Amino acid sequence: MAIANTSTADGPPVLSVGVPRRRFNTGLDVRIAARANDFTTFTSGLAPSHLQANLIVLPSRYASDFRDLCARNPVPCPLLAESYVPGDFSRLKSRLHTVPSGAKIAADLDLRSDCPRYNVYVDSKFTKDGVFNIQSYWTSDHIAFLIGCSYSFESALCNAALPPRHFVMDRNVSMYRTNIPLNPAGVFTGATYVVSMRPYKKADIPKIRAITRGYLATHGECLAWGWDALERLGIADIDTPQWGDAPLTLDRRPLSEMMGDDDHVPVFWGCGVTPQEAVMNAGLEGTVMGHAPGHMLVLDCLEEAILV
Amino acid sequence: MAIANTSTADGPPVLSVGVPRRRFNTGLDVRIAARANDFTTFTSGLAPSHLQANLIVLPSRYASDFRDLCARNPVPCPLLAESYVPGDFSRLKSRLHTVPSGAKIAADLDLRSDCPRYNVYVDSKFTKDGVFNIQSYWTSDHIAFLIGCSYSFESALCNAALPPRHFVMDRNVSMYRTNIPLNPAGVFTGATYVVSMRPYKKADIPKIRAITRGYLATHGECLAWGWDALERLGIADIDTPQWGDAPLTLDRRPLSEMMGDDDHVPVFWGCGVTPQEAVMNAGLEGTVMGHAPGHMLVLDCLEEAILV
Repeated sequence: MAIANTSTADGPPVLSVGVPRRRFNTGLDVRIAARANDFTTFTSGLAPSHLQANLIVLPSRYASDFRDLCARNPVPCPLLAESYVPGDFSRLKSRLHTVPSGAKIAADLDLRSDCPRYNVYVDSKFTKDGVFNIQSYWTSDHIAFLIGCSYSFESALCNAALPPRHFVMDRNVSMYRTNIPLNPAGVFTGATYVVSMRPYKKADIPKIRAITRGYLATHGECLAWGWDALERLGIADIDTPQWGDAPLTLDRRPLSEMMGDDDHVPVFWGCGVTPQEAVMNAGLEGTVMGHAPGHMLVLDCLEEAILV
Repeated sequence: MAIANTSTADGPPVLSVGVPRRRFNTGLDVRIAARANDFTTFTSGLAPSHLQANLIVLPSRYASDFRDLCARNPVPCPLLAESYVPGDFSRLKSRLHTVPSGAKIAADLDLRSDCPRYNVYVDSKFTKDGVFNIQSYWTSDHIAFLIGCSYSFESALCNAALPPRHFVMDRNVSMYRTNIPLNPAGVFTGATYVVSMRPYKKADIPKIRAITRGYLATHGECLAWGWDALERLGIADIDTPQWGDAPLTLDRRPLSEMMGDDDHVPVFWGCGVTPQEAVMNAGLEGTVMGHAPGHMLVLDCLEEAILV
């Protein structure tokens, strides 16, 4: 493989940072490479300006509850699209007003293999970590849901000369569990928001809120910011994210060394890993699948198409 | 007045409970009575099956931020409609997919006088409590927003032989501040959910969740339940709601005496007083107006029209 990824199918990716990433021009290019297991790492910054999505695949009996969960929690769970019919892994039904055609969101699609990596949950227990595809788990009763991803506003931040630090350093974004409750829906109770974090200068936060607020369908605008937000969100240790890579300063020190510094302020957005956490809390029966955090489905649709 | 309401325009309503309430057949009947200051008390159970709404009136420069606040927080802030144009107090623009015509939501309308009572905030400070109308505060720059109200699923609960207790006892519903943060939007930062509470038997909660979940536009389904929810929501004292009447047992004892009892379990829904709290936290300049909690705008539209 051309990328520096020493992980195996059984373990989480272990990345050699600083190695240049492969370049892809379109979402389809990324999907075809992922389908062939020729690209298996995180997708931030790939195929710039193409929308990226979180994936969650559920037994059909939970679909209605899940749609309500999304409707009641649009910041962490913004629903973009779902399987056209149960069992369908190649055609989408759009849930975006701005892009009403599922085929315009992604055509030439295999939801079972087009994310670089997947997680698998059986009876709400985390069972498989970071596998390359989910063909052997997929059944005609499964429905896939695509949820917006905050990677989708990173091009806009880059264009405003405010590139996210994990993007600059070629690392996975840092993701954290919080204590902010999701509004429950049917079987989905007891779950909390998962957030992604990007450090910025305090003085830039108004600009960052303004840039990302147009991306309602992909977790914008931010939901909390400032060093004091850690306590409000119930994040005990900024250096120990539950998913993704630990956040670093540009000279590779732990971000916690900057605590209280206005030049390195954590800024938080809703995160599409939230539905996977909701599944773990819901005691669902059967097999549930999702993308591995940071290893998204890259779409045909451009980010600007979802701007409101 | 036919109702037992000893309050004045300067103070909150003081109600003699147990006196039969006046009967109204339609939303318009209630609005005409409120317009004439001939009905000035809380509206739960009035004109059964007619949709009720929370009102918030803002200077136009905050309208865009407020729409985003609603989009990002649909459980406590479900937007039903707004002024057709700035300054318009008699015509609505619908924000409901199921009832796209503002005139079908309410015609023959004067938003300045058709709630039984109003609160007024100047420069984000609570200034006037429970006034009968807001004609002297309204300007051509004001935009009114109608937010769904949980009274709108009370008919459905009554029809299922699960009438809310405040309804049976002819009291105002109990409303509480919580520590659950709203997703911020523009100027609206730092606010938290307000919730309404209705006690029920623990065994009935699944049925209650199922009945109210169709009312996505009016705070359904519930967002928390159980005696342990008090701590999760940050409610220190169930007997001291911040708005409405204190909750009682059917034999008129404080609800706290039932703490831990499965026959008297608090169940919480999002509450449309939330935007008024958001205003207080946002440091808005100028004059903001809202309905007095529990004293809603009653609409022409029927509750069943919004079911999803």
